[in-house]
Amino acid sequence: MDVDGTRSFAERMGGVVFGGDYNPEQWPREVWDDDVRLMKDAGVAMVTVGVFSWSMLEPRDGVFEFDWLDDVLDRLHAGGIAVDLATPNASPPPWMAEDHPESSMVDRHGVRVGVGSRGHFCPSSPVYRDRSLRIARRLAERYGGHPALALWHVGNEYHAECFCDLCDERFRGWLREKYGSLDELNRRWGTAVWSQRYSDWSQVHLPRPVRGRVNPARQLDYSRFNSGVQLELYRRERDLLREITPSVPVTTNFFQSISLLDYHRWGAEVDVVAFDTYPDPGRADAKIKAAFQYDLMRSIGGGRPWLVLEQSSSAVSQWPRNYVKKPGRMRLGSYQALARGADAVMFFQWRASRSGQEKFHSAMLPHSGTAGRTWREVSALGRELPRVAGVAGSRSSADVAIVWDYENWWAVEGCFHPVNDFSYPATVLEHYTPLWERNIAVDVVTLTSDLSRYRVLVVPNQYLLTTDRQEALHAFVAAGGHVLVSYFSGIVDGDDRVVPGGIREVIGAHVHEFAPMPPDETVTVRAVHGQDLVPSGFTGTARNWQDDMVAEGARVVAEYTDGFLRGQPAVLDRQLGDGSCVYLGTRLDPQSFAVVLGTVLQRAGVTPVFDAPAGVEAGVRIGPEQRFLFLVNHGDATAVRLDRDGTDLLTGVSWTAGRSIPLEAAGVAVIASPSTPAR
Amino acid sequence: MDVDGTRSFAERMGGVVFGGDYNPEQWPREVWDDDVRLMKDAGVAMVTVGVFSWSMLEPRDGVFEFDWLDDVLDRLHAGGIAVDLATPNASPPPWMAEDHPESSMVDRHGVRVGVGSRGHFCPSSPVYRDRSLRIARRLAERYGGHPALALWHVGNEYHAECFCDLCDERFRGWLREKYGSLDELNRRWGTAVWSQRYSDWSQVHLPRPVRGRVNPARQLDYSRFNSGVQLELYRRERDLLREITPSVPVTTNFFQSISLLDYHRWGAEVDVVAFDTYPDPGRADAKIKAAFQYDLMRSIGGGRPWLVLEQSSSAVSQWPRNYVKKPGRMRLGSYQALARGADAVMFFQWRASRSGQEKFHSAMLPHSGTAGRTWREVSALGRELPRVAGVAGSRSSADVAIVWDYENWWAVEGCFHPVNDFSYPATVLEHYTPLWERNIAVDVVTLTSDLSRYRVLVVPNQYLLTTDRQEALHAFVAAGGHVLVSYFSGIVDGDDRVVPGGIREVIGAHVHEFAPMPPDETVTVRAVHGQDLVPSGFTGTARNWQDDMVAEGARVVAEYTDGFLRGQPAVLDRQLGDGSCVYLGTRLDPQSFAVVLGTVLQRAGVTPVFDAPAGVEAGVRIGPEQRFLFLVNHGDATAVRLDRDGTDLLTGVSWTAGRSIPLEAAGVAVIASPSTPAR
Amino acid sequence: MDVDGTRSFAERMGGVVFGGDYNPEQWPREVWDDDVRLMKDAGVAMVTVGVFSWSMLEPRDGVFEFDWLDDVLDRLHAGGIAVDLATPNASPPPWMAEDHPESSMVDRHGVRVGVGSRGHFCPSSPVYRDRSLRIARRLAERYGGHPALALWHVGNEYHAECFCDLCDERFRGWLREKYGSLDELNRRWGTAVWSQRYSDWSQVHLPRPVRGRVNPARQLDYSRFNSGVQLELYRRERDLLREITPSVPVTTNFFQSISLLDYHRWGAEVDVVAFDTYPDPGRADAKIKAAFQYDLMRSIGGGRPWLVLEQSSSAVSQWPRNYVKKPGRMRLGSYQALARGADAVMFFQWRASRSGQEKFHSAMLPHSGTAGRTWREVSALGRELPRVAGVAGSRSSADVAIVWDYENWWAVEGCFHPVNDFSYPATVLEHYTPLWERNIAVDVVTLTSDLSRYRVLVVPNQYLLTTDRQEALHAFVAAGGHVLVSYFSGIVDGDDRVVPGGIREVIGAHVHEFAPMPPDETVTVRAVHGQDLVPSGFTGTARNWQDDMVAEGARVVAEYTDGFLRGQPAVLDRQLGDGSCVYLGTRLDPQSFAVVLGTVLQRAGVTPVFDAPAGVEAGVRIGPEQRFLFLVNHGDATAVRLDRDGTDLLTGVSWTAGRSIPLEAAGVAVIASPSTPAR
Repeated sequence: MDVDGTRSFAERMGGVVFGGDYNPEQWPREVWDDDVRLMKDAGVAMVTVGVFSWSMLEPRDGVFEFDWLDDVLDRLHAGGIAVDLATPNASPPPWMAEDHPESSMVDRHGVRVGVGSRGHFCPSSPVYRDRSLRIARRLAERYGGHPALALWHVGNEYHAECFCDLCDERFRGWLREKYGSLDELNRRWGTAVWSQRYSDWSQVHLPRPVRGRVNPARQLDYSRFNSGVQLELYRRERDLLREITPSVPVTTNFFQSISLLDYHRWGAEVDVVAFDTYPDPGRADAKIKAAFQYDLMRSIGGGRPWLVLEQSSSAVSQWPRNYVKKPGRMRLGSYQALARGADAVMFFQWRASRSGQEKFHSAMLPHSGTAGRTWREVSALGRELPRVAGVAGSRSSADVAIVWDYENWWAVEGCFHPVNDFSYPATVLEHYTPLWERNIAVDVVTLTSDLSRYRVLVVPNQYLLTTDRQEALHAFVAAGGHVLVSYFSGIVDGDDRVVPGGIREVIGAHVHEFAPMPPDETVTVRAVHGQDLVPSGFTGTARNWQDDMVAEGARVVAEYTDGFLRGQPAVLDRQLGDGSCVYLGTRLDPQSFAVVLGTVLQRAGVTPVFDAPAGVEAGVRIGPEQRFLFLVNHGDATAVRLDRDGTDLLTGVSWTAGRSIPLEAAGVAVIASPSTPAR
Repeated sequence: MDVDGTRSFAERMGGVVFGGDYNPEQWPREVWDDDVRLMKDAGVAMVTVGVFSWSMLEPRDGVFEFDWLDDVLDRLHAGGIAVDLATPNASPPPWMAEDHPESSMVDRHGVRVGVGSRGHFCPSSPVYRDRSLRIARRLAERYGGHPALALWHVGNEYHAECFCDLCDERFRGWLREKYGSLDELNRRWGTAVWSQRYSDWSQVHLPRPVRGRVNPARQLDYSRFNSGVQLELYRRERDLLREITPSVPVTTNFFQSISLLDYHRWGAEVDVVAFDTYPDPGRADAKIKAAFQYDLMRSIGGGRPWLVLEQSSSAVSQWPRNYVKKPGRMRLGSYQALARGADAVMFFQWRASRSGQEKFHSAMLPHSGTAGRTWREVSALGRELPRVAGVAGSRSSADVAIVWDYENWWAVEGCFHPVNDFSYPATVLEHYTPLWERNIAVDVVTLTSDLSRYRVLVVPNQYLLTTDRQEALHAFVAAGGHVLVSYFSGIVDGDDRVVPGGIREVIGAHVHEFAPMPPDETVTVRAVHGQDLVPSGFTGTARNWQDDMVAEGARVVAEYTDGFLRGQPAVLDRQLGDGSCVYLGTRLDPQSFAVVLGTVLQRAGVTPVFDAPAGVEAGVRIGPEQRFLFLVNHGDATAVRLDRDGTDLLTGVSWTAGRSIPLEAAGVAVIASPSTPAR
Repeated sequence: MDVDGTRSFAERMGGVVFGGDYNPEQWPREVWDDDVRLMKDAGVAMVTVGVFSWSMLEPRDGVFEFDWLDDVLDRLHAGGIAVDLATPNASPPPWMAEDHPESSMVDRHGVRVGVGSRGHFCPSSPVYRDRSLRIARRLAERYGGHPALALWHVGNEYHAECFCDLCDERFRGWLREKYGSLDELNRRWGTAVWSQRYSDWSQVHLPRPVRGRVNPARQLDYSRFNSGVQLELYRRERDLLREITPSVPVTTNFFQSISLLDYHRWGAEVDVVAFDTYPDPGRADAKIKAAFQYDLMRSIGGGRPWLVLEQSSSAVSQWPRNYVKKPGRMRLGSYQALARGADAVMFFQWRASRSGQEKFHSAMLPHSGTAGRTWREVSALGRELPRVAGVAGSRSSADVAIVWDYENWWAVEGCFHPVNDFSYPATVLEHYTPLWERNIAVDVVTLTSDLSRYRVLVVPNQYLLTTDRQEALHAFVAAGGHVLVSYFSGIVDGDDRVVPGGIREVIGAHVHEFAPMPPDETVTVRAVHGQDLVPSGFTGTARNWQDDMVAEGARVVAEYTDGFLRGQPAVLDRQLGDGSCVYLGTRLDPQSFAVVLGTVLQRAGVTPVFDAPAGVEAGVRIGPEQRFLFLVNHGDATAVRLDRDGTDLLTGVSWTAGRSIPLEAAGVAVIASPSTPAR
């Protein structure tokens, strides 16, 4: 594989890719011709095939039926449609579970699950590993040279979690390798607490049910182990495919914010990052959460364009209530993804299933066929996207990074903490929201990422602070960077072991005690006179948590005016050379938080990518010759004043700088201008 | 058995039967004489004996102790009290579980339950099946000729559900018989979805736990299978009893609205329908729910009188809070059952237990004995009922039918639907309520029932529409019937497979998309000018759901005035010859729903059985010579104007038509008039 | 052991003991010297060592490592610090679970739990029993003569609950011994209900999962059995220790209000009562609940002083949100315990752990070391306590007793009751609260305690009333005592079998029926004119429950003025010689309840220990020469007028009777006066 699989894939596909999952095995052949015809009508350029086809391709152990797939690929190719071909490991056929019971996963409570859903395999089972690799090899050998093949799709939404004896043995092996000796494990897990000292490796197990809760260091190691188990599964198939078809890029589809996988580790392992996005139309913050996830996908790929590999044309079916995407909203969300770096807009799935668990999941071609709004909107989008073909391959840049750290997630939501209903995704989104609202470009990183390109670093509740993370934070500030870090940060090392004063040096304060607040209580914070971080006279409210701390080098810029910590510091500001570190010892109300963050941005000279009205999301992508300003209107009808000349690719209308262009509710504009150096 | 076991039982018992469950095995013999004396005081005509007596009758495998039961039956007979004798299969003795562990049920999660409660058997266990039949045979042989024996009572409230290997094997056999081939099963279960295709019968299992949720077609078949398993259990005992005692009618007691059994299939299998009714005194809608269940019981028996075999004299004990029946309410509820076709008023149980799980369940003779209100009300009712003896055997007729379809229940509450908190019983009750409020006589049917006698058919959310159901619906309208059908109807066939347009022809519209609404949102609907179904100018509200649809032949009679479907159709009206079909694409507020339904009734010329004030439930039963008007006052004191001459059987007072009779709160009147042809 | 281990321990320790749990095995030796130095700074007199040290003392089966503990005890002794040495049975090392799987507990659902937490042993396992006794013997033999040893601490917070086959066999044996014959068990468990009659002992099992709920008599016996299992575990270690070190007192630490142990049975088994107290700073009623628990601890020890063996210096970590103790509140709570009879103030733990499940549990020496508020307050308290050294050994007396009966708890919260969300601890606390608010001294007893010293007995909802309890209640009133008893009392005997009229004689009324009320409903009660228990004209509200009853000898002193029991009795008053029994047939609002209770107290001539302002808790302890009045201010700053001359031990200031001493918020005074006969 050449260095940049993303580029090779992009070159193959040409523009913004439109398409979806295609499951022809659910339909008689007479439907297939109709499919290809309608795909062409809708501008489909690529379809994903074979994700759940294992039992149709190998109905019995070692008995293969490829004829139907040959036919499908030939028809698609004849129709000019490329194929993203999946290895089907996400759902082994029933014969495997029946003939090899140990190939099925065992849940945390020791129950071996049955077939009839998906994702039910044990990732350590020799039979599963052998047979999944075997069918991947067969597919690669048979279709590696097929002209329709544009991309390999390994598995589906990896999220295995198995507690069987095979996995138990493997966990033990992983620990032996990590720790070398049992003494070292005992030391770092802190087994002197509660009489947990191990005297033989055989005593060490997966975190199966205990009375109460398990040692948190053991749980944390399990999270690392399990994320790695799946990456290993993916890599062995990827390596096989690369060996057989070195010129075909390989990916797998990431999804949502689940905690089972450390996606930062996966970004470099795929040739092109692909994401399944399902923002909930019933939630007002879904668009912000989506933006964050898109920034994450772009960031884990090192800034490369990525693919929306799945989204829904309208409602999904897995939630308690599944709301439709109202008129224009599917298009709006598609452009939002493009604005944040996507080069593809694809759907699950092409044709709505008639049977099974997902039959009410919307599709490009729904049960009502071409008669209704869904098809109208889907096919209109497919026909419109070629207008923005030039966007493909263009990239963004950001001066601000926000930390989203899976290891921290695993640790900070651990048991027996001061607040045990803490949600890391929620707090990160809270830190991200004012950046999104002001259209500040943001990358999503960890403290172990390359931070040298950023001027501002937002660090939400970084409970887990390994030595390397701690040093990176120091280095960032020392190099003149500006950091905003919030309470319950720098508490433990990588073994979930408290390191008193772990962040004391950076924030310039000593946190003596954590004081969680009742959920419905607030306290007032007030700017300290003469400080510049918060405007003089400013007051706000705080909730959830108060650090009981004393400044040691930092300036107190806001203090509590009531509660038992009245007069004590709430917000600190520390200058370190040209850099600075702002520390929040509490959870500020959104407005106050935005004020503090605004000052940090100002201090660093960070400005929005575009100064848009409220509700209008702006994104800028820059190609070799053109610069693209995306305006995505989540709010009501408005007008937007342009800051430079450009042409709206969607309408073909040219606008001069200073002119206001109308933007209706759910409206989108993509303004192309000549490329200039990044602002 | 002669054709009509209900009639033979009624002839034996004479009038309205009064009595209850009698568990003498819980008491020393010195209590028994007291029991019979008090039973006679209270007018008890029949008691149910032996429901939970297995371990007292057969304390060890094959060791029988019948002496005590001989004594009980003799004493009862001597007291002139008939016996409803139970086969005790609902609770096998502890020795069976201990000596034959496989005879105990295994729950969905694989746990084999212990003894100490009841209903813990595996319905497929050879030992259970052999021993339960053996003791039934012994009882039949010993007591078949006993003069007290009036009725056989097989088991108790069937509701088994077992996931053991024996049941698994049996499910596989049931599927083989149903589908003939694995290919056919694969096709109809849609196993091409998610790689579930089976290649050997051994791979097919009960819907035991999977990762996520199981294939819904498999789940639906399991519901059918499990309902059938229990009917088979019942039938084998019934057939045995019929063989040994051909002249004794056989029944079992149905209960509440549980989804495990398709009671429509059971109606024809019992010689007399018997029901256990436990309306919750803490719920305002309990009386409507009870009315619905009574209509169901009457309907599954083909209109035959049925028995209240169990009710409580006051509070029960199985709920979080168990409220008493306030003064007069137990009597009121008893007459409500008579008004809707019952010929018996019986209780669980005669004498309150001192031990066990039901010791705080009220009884005819409570712990406080004859001292308190409960005994006063119970014995007063028992002494009063002979006044309405003439009611026994009389029947009702209805012009309206409402669909209550167990197969639809199983399917419509399935997983991964647009709305996953949907309650079929709640929606059916919502459709039934305005009929009850207006005293419209209603039968409870399925679309596969004989519908020829009805003029109006109410079809709540008939998601599952098999070909025969679809044809029956067509035929009903074609024959001049009037149908009201609500949204999410005609979606899938009997395999839970989507059939696009399955109901398009009947409703005259194409539903493109389902749009569930947030639980607390409403939209406004307005009558379309010039249409007659809803009064011009009428507006109402709708919630929960909106169909996005276009009329194709139907007239739009109401449309949305706000929301994203503003101006789109909400209610449709289709004329088909003399018949019509009204379609609700949303959930109307109760008042608006009543208006729409009222017009349909008017169109069909359906009128109430009696025009009573609000809160007064009216029922009419017609015997060979007399017509009985029941007036059951759930509300405050009021007066009711009679429409014909008659005599109140409870007071002996005669009234002439046009006179108002007073009806106090919780008051009842039973007005007998000469029979005339049904109105 | 001499008769009074409490006294021998007190003599050894001298004054009020200050200290905490010390877990040196979690720290390198270089920390130990620092520990001893800081302990001395803080006035620590005793530390608890070894509670969770098993795996450090015996890392492999039979391989012991005592060197480190030798060192620890020597250093402590050198520092003048006594040791409370624990036997480590609460958390067996991992080798035991691995090498002897049957030594781990099995939960109610049949899952054998793993290691990694604590309390995971099976109390019936021969290996566990052998090895736990072996290490206790080793400790006793090695350290029995160590000069630091002041107290043995057996295990930790006993709360085992195991459902394995070994425990099952043991339960069967316990039942055989209790009942003698299976016939007797069948009779008393009421197995005639639901066909549960046993015909062989092999059929009888632990209350493992059944379909629905298990026979309540069996469940009740299980509760008795399981409480006894743990007492037996404790006693065998205690007996061993007594044998080896006859002069060292033995205790174990009780904790919170868990229902697994009948602490009344444990009081006489320990040489000194020790308690772990964790009032929740987030709950306003935590101080009242704490007071109740302290009264319980004092009462089960027969009035002997007891030890606070664990409390937290600030927040704990096991709750959803863990609030800090605000400034002064830890000291306040410590004096509250002293006021109610404690002779020690100790903490979990000395030095905050860095690892494991309790690392965020506050400590005497927190992660912030000596820098913050916690250390300031802890060390200040330790240095202050010597001023009240004279308190040690002094005792209290009470004229009022409240019943807190574990057997009743087990039974009254059983299944299938009229109200199934009933909380016995909540109702007892509700009865206790007005006594606490008025500073009435209260002992916490059962009806089988020696009641002869009391004038008033408060009996909350005594559902379970065995013959001996019934006779004790009779005897108390007959002897001139005054009783207040509330509804749902006297319902069942010791076999959970209803005994109609079980309390009829004492209360002078016949309860016909229980009428639970909806949670949000109230009714009004009004004083009956001319009665003296409640002031004429008084009205109040009632909720939750109404007895439908008739007076038989009692006077009706309050009746309902609305609801379906309008005009019926709500509160009864019965004179029996010089004694009386007030019966509440409903749950009165707190104010009305306080009025009724106040009249009963007045009738008995009971007065507060001290007449303090609202929010000020007062306790009196009397020693051979001095009387100590504790004033503990839970409210705002106030002043308290003294009733006799005295000296505040904390300030050294002397006050004369009639003078008001200032008491700030969270302030405490300990006024010493010459002893006089108890008021």
